[in-house]
Amino acid sequence: MIILGIDPGLALTGYGLVEERQNGFKRIASGTVRTSRKTPGALRLAAIYDAVTELIRQYQPRAVAVEKLFFCKNVRTAMQVGEARGTILLAAAKNNLDLYEYTPLQVKQAVAGYGQADKLQVQRMVELLLKLAQPITAADEADALAIALCHLQNFRYHEAVKGGR
Amino acid sequence: MIILGIDPGLALTGYGLVEERQNGFKRIASGTVRTSRKTPGALRLAAIYDAVTELIRQYQPRAVAVEKLFFCKNVRTAMQVGEARGTILLAAAKNNLDLYEYTPLQVKQAVAGYGQADKLQVQRMVELLLKLAQPITAADEADALAIALCHLQNFRYHEAVKGGR
Repeated sequence: MIILGIDPGLALTGYGLVEERQNGFKRIASGTVRTSRKTPGALRLAAIYDAVTELIRQYQPRAVAVEKLFFCKNVRTAMQVGEARGTILLAAAKNNLDLYEYTPLQVKQAVAGYGQADKLQVQRMVELLLKLAQPITAADEADALAIALCHLQNFRYHEAVKGGR
Repeated sequence: MIILGIDPGLALTGYGLVEERQNGFKRIASGTVRTSRKTPGALRLAAIYDAVTELIRQYQPRAVAVEKLFFCKNVRTAMQVGEARGTILLAAAKNNLDLYEYTPLQVKQAVAGYGQADKLQVQRMVELLLKLAQPITAADEADALAIALCHLQNFRYHEAVKGGR
């Protein structure tokens, strides 16, 4: 089962595809989608939408997991993150994929064991869990992988809840 | 030339299609797209996207105009409005339509003549400008028509700037 984790942003969207195998978690692919400030906003969103749609087509993930934020530097930033998030939610819906949302606290707890872990600790834990030979350089890419890992660790719970309804 | 004005919101998105004719402005269509709280967020966004795409297909507007907000009650609301906005921006981009953004101040100045006009004044001015026989009941529908009118009044300026480049 492959999960697509996404850390949404207008300028920089991180993505990470993680598969759960019998011997642990494996990174299938990860990276970032960058859009330029010089490009009109609507076209930047279209570029993000197309990139996510292409990842779904290529890797056929079982579900999409994204970060759910309640805090932001300011309203303008929140609106921009919302626009990027909306695009990703739409790409999931248009491909009939279930979407799961996790708070940064949940992601940190799942990956690093406690909610107050800093960005670098999360990054190192992601590298350890995925047995990566090379360190990840982009923070948004590490976050996306962490979100996918968080979902895989929560998945059995979700399935149990679904089955029990 | 028909303009599609949109007032984006996750629960309630207002839309208004306005055409400029030799004898003034004419409302072609207007209304609201409602989504239920009981529906998962991604599917609500898909419903908004599909409704806007259908309006574009049916009425073939020349451009899409939306409100640009810098203030919001809180970050959570801003994020939600951003998600709905992102969906609409994407629908415009995917249909190769130019997108124009106006602040509430610009919309009020264009329609009611001054930026401090209240919601009801804007609504009445929209009804007068469009010579509507029946009053508009939904505030978001009136706002969407006001945004379309704002763009039509600013359009020659935009075209002049484009031509001069």
